[in-house]
Amino acid sequence: MEPGRVSRRRDVLGLVAFVLLCFGTATLGRTATAHAVLDWYPALRKPSWTPPSWIFGPVWTALYGMMAVAGWLAWRDGRTRTATLVFLLQLFLNGAWSWVFFGARRPDLAFACVVALWLAIIATIAAFWRVSRMAVVLFVPYLAWVSFAAALNLAVVRLN
Amino acid sequence: MEPGRVSRRRDVLGLVAFVLLCFGTATLGRTATAHAVLDWYPALRKPSWTPPSWIFGPVWTALYGMMAVAGWLAWRDGRTRTATLVFLLQLFLNGAWSWVFFGARRPDLAFACVVALWLAIIATIAAFWRVSRMAVVLFVPYLAWVSFAAALNLAVVRLN
Repeated sequence: MEPGRVSRRRDVLGLVAFVLLCFGTATLGRTATAHAVLDWYPALRKPSWTPPSWIFGPVWTALYGMMAVAGWLAWRDGRTRTATLVFLLQLFLNGAWSWVFFGARRPDLAFACVVALWLAIIATIAAFWRVSRMAVVLFVPYLAWVSFAAALNLAVVRLN
Repeated sequence: MEPGRVSRRRDVLGLVAFVLLCFGTATLGRTATAHAVLDWYPALRKPSWTPPSWIFGPVWTALYGMMAVAGWLAWRDGRTRTATLVFLLQLFLNGAWSWVFFGARRPDLAFACVVALWLAIIATIAAFWRVSRMAVVLFVPYLAWVSFAAALNLAVVRLN
């Protein structure tokens, strides 16, 4: 939090916007998964190391929360717009993945999507590095989880 | 954001904690509603002015987001702990309501809970008033929605 160039109202509204953007994407994603999670997903063949289904909700809640704060920190720094742009790109790919995997029920296309998401997260971390180390730290668990999710997605493609 | 007494890491961790507390409560509440929303709730008699079910998700997402930012603003001000304490009380009552209404399927007890929540929100706004006007503004839509939800809860008690 750098004093001097801080505009209080702008910062707070920006923070609300980032929280709503991230959890709005979460809500949209949940809409896509709602039906598929009841019938289609349980019937898929999955690898032995698939986590129990109840884990995904709390994990994503935590990751979206950290993501929102990280995006806001980089945005409010103001030194570069690149960080915000790649952040928005990764958020879009994050939402798109749910729609492709669960909405369209296409794990193969979803794998392409999650690879693009993984690259966009790396790009976001690289952009964050210049403006906020705290934002980088907040993105590390997200990168780790998406790496795991990509492996799970690939295993589902192979098994079905 | 007042410079001078700001500790960067503490502020950011506090923000993450407030976002996770609020959306953690949201996730717990959703767990309580999950089954009841499929069978019990649709079968209840409801007043003509009941909103369509799909509205509740996005509205609560927006309200939890504004709530998290408001709670954080008051907490980081640091002049009083009262604001944070009543904030946590209203958050607890918020989560409890979902469990009483949908989990225990007791709209009558839930009405008592939502009245307590409404009073706790008023108390939170009063405590915010001394430390952050921005936090007050962020809580106004929440107070309005809970007022409406309390009326809806009372109507459900009377009709069933």
